[in-house]
Amino acid sequence: MEILTGGLGNVPGYAFSAVECGIKYRNRLDLSLIAAEKPCHAAGVFTTNRVFAAPVRLCRERTGLPVRGILINATNANACTGEEGYSNARALTRETARLLGAPEDSVLMASTGVIGVQLPAEKMMKSLPNLVLGASPANGGLVAKAIMTTDTFAKEYAVRFACDGASYTIAGTAKGAGMIAPNMATLLAFLLTDMPLAKKDLDAIFRRCIARSLNAITIDGDMSTNDTAVLLCPVSDPPRASAADLAAFEEALLAVLKKLAELLVRDGEGATKFVRVLVTHAADEADARLAARAVAQSLLVKTALFGNDPNWGRIACAAGYSGARVEETRLSVMIDDATLLSNGTPVPFVRAELLERLAKSDLTVRVDLGMGDAEAEYLTTDLSYDYVKINAEYTT
Amino acid sequence: MEILTGGLGNVPGYAFSAVECGIKYRNRLDLSLIAAEKPCHAAGVFTTNRVFAAPVRLCRERTGLPVRGILINATNANACTGEEGYSNARALTRETARLLGAPEDSVLMASTGVIGVQLPAEKMMKSLPNLVLGASPANGGLVAKAIMTTDTFAKEYAVRFACDGASYTIAGTAKGAGMIAPNMATLLAFLLTDMPLAKKDLDAIFRRCIARSLNAITIDGDMSTNDTAVLLCPVSDPPRASAADLAAFEEALLAVLKKLAELLVRDGEGATKFVRVLVTHAADEADARLAARAVAQSLLVKTALFGNDPNWGRIACAAGYSGARVEETRLSVMIDDATLLSNGTPVPFVRAELLERLAKSDLTVRVDLGMGDAEAEYLTTDLSYDYVKINAEYTT
Repeated sequence: MEILTGGLGNVPGYAFSAVECGIKYRNRLDLSLIAAEKPCHAAGVFTTNRVFAAPVRLCRERTGLPVRGILINATNANACTGEEGYSNARALTRETARLLGAPEDSVLMASTGVIGVQLPAEKMMKSLPNLVLGASPANGGLVAKAIMTTDTFAKEYAVRFACDGASYTIAGTAKGAGMIAPNMATLLAFLLTDMPLAKKDLDAIFRRCIARSLNAITIDGDMSTNDTAVLLCPVSDPPRASAADLAAFEEALLAVLKKLAELLVRDGEGATKFVRVLVTHAADEADARLAARAVAQSLLVKTALFGNDPNWGRIACAAGYSGARVEETRLSVMIDDATLLSNGTPVPFVRAELLERLAKSDLTVRVDLGMGDAEAEYLTTDLSYDYVKINAEYTT
Repeated sequence: MEILTGGLGNVPGYAFSAVECGIKYRNRLDLSLIAAEKPCHAAGVFTTNRVFAAPVRLCRERTGLPVRGILINATNANACTGEEGYSNARALTRETARLLGAPEDSVLMASTGVIGVQLPAEKMMKSLPNLVLGASPANGGLVAKAIMTTDTFAKEYAVRFACDGASYTIAGTAKGAGMIAPNMATLLAFLLTDMPLAKKDLDAIFRRCIARSLNAITIDGDMSTNDTAVLLCPVSDPPRASAADLAAFEEALLAVLKKLAELLVRDGEGATKFVRVLVTHAADEADARLAARAVAQSLLVKTALFGNDPNWGRIACAAGYSGARVEETRLSVMIDDATLLSNGTPVPFVRAELLERLAKSDLTVRVDLGMGDAEAEYLTTDLSYDYVKINAEYTT
């Protein structure tokens, strides 16, 4: 597998565009387009929030159909906007499809930003001709920029992989950086490939890879109304469908998604530390995930990490209330390679050494449950003053 | 029901004491005692965390027996301390019982503070004679002070109620202020009464009242290893057991527990606002609680409240992912009496008026699910810089 420079623009068969529409702010790219030359299969994973945005409703209706494009806007979530919001999403994608010369329901939509405010549909409608006209294979980087909200850098990644003599590409872009919870894609992510696959294989592989990447990160535990991850591949008859083809594809897709997940966490709102939470020897994988998630989401763990506070008891405490089967006499806690609790008994530590470890910006918190053979990893951040600042001031 | 001045000291039949033992810090009361003149029934509600402190283990073993006292220490949780921690708790309570002239296993223990550090058992043992000698009915206020950790004020409350010609007292004290999660007592709380009740009535009433008070508050969603709420009443044959007696007792106990819950939330770590989250018209009570808890715990809701940010979409979002049955077209959101979302459609609001409302230190966030007749209330706070500051620096 070869890592490529740049992102979406590496994948043949797609064109990209972004414009400054002025949806909420002036002078920023806020409306973007991914256009496919030919009809594509789409796999989608969406928020499980019962309050979901109009574009999520629209995507759910259309991911079973051939897809020709994805219209994306930042700064307005088009969530909690009732029928007017849904009708705006339909009108905007209908017009985009018309301009692309594609079937009316072949364009998906994704939105991110403030909840409960109607889209400025007329203004957006006027931007669509320029958006479609500007589409070019060279503009992949613009989409990564245009989807950002509180992200501090654009996130993109691409790999090329060999497969039975042929060579294919997978690329992706994603935006965070708050409302990042596990248990759903928790963000916007767009993945493209030029490898033709059957719809059912695309769906199954995408779900498996999401579970091990975008669904295993947390910034603040809030699940958004707009989480959308979409993967497109060209429709082709016959598709690549051998076990070797699918395995090569899955390996490459997982690599792209894991990298995007890591970039999202590194850019978590206000984060000063990137933290891997690794749970080992759980009774089963569900337990391993429960414990890893509880530790990764605990405010007390996250604030202690921010303060370089060697308060490891909070880690044991979070594992204890996670719902996983935990027996204190089998429980061990490590920060990097320093063991702090061993089978339920505290291990004396050299304070200065531990403080030095904690001061690093990359840390691994390890919890050994001693109950079985399963493990799980979550990525998280510390919780800083800046998280509060960013989120206290977001809409104002 | 008459509200009394002060707290535990109002209840006849008990004596109190507190000393500066120097468990972790000098010059602060950190070791205290509640002593009962006669054997008491004890009802206890404890953390459901699978990692629970040694004193919780000890209380679970002893609340079925007649109780003569409760030994309480602050600044050290005696959690994650293995067999040594349990053995320390046993030795300290055995010595306290001996000094009280009471049976060996008649003293309970409760601890709060840092996790994973052994108690300075020898030093504590030396403090016990003075602690027991100092016990007096006049010292109830000292216990309220001695159990504080990051609390900024002592919390106590007492009421007198009439019951079939007689008059009884219930009083309580509690400490917060972080690691406050719903779904368990989430703190230390001690309640005393002079009304004699049967053990089974005491248990049942205590559980019901806790569910509607201490289990319906949240500061940070972290469930501690040490949550302990204990209620003592004198053993007497026959006990008061008529339906009218029990109803009068339950009403008074609920009033005391609700007041303590409110005081705990008002003193939440770093809190600048006291927020009632009221969920109405839920399909059933479980749904009402799920939705109220999700809104009350959401970091995005809590940071928005801190910033006086009229970002009400985050409230709808949290209700949506709570697990409760939610249909967007029936969902309404109000802040105090201002409706912001009505049956899934945003309601235009006057920004200046809403900002004025948000700037108040007492707020009600109301979510109407429109699905049935059940309701639930949670108490919560905003999330401020100071929460992060306090918890980033707690053990250091």
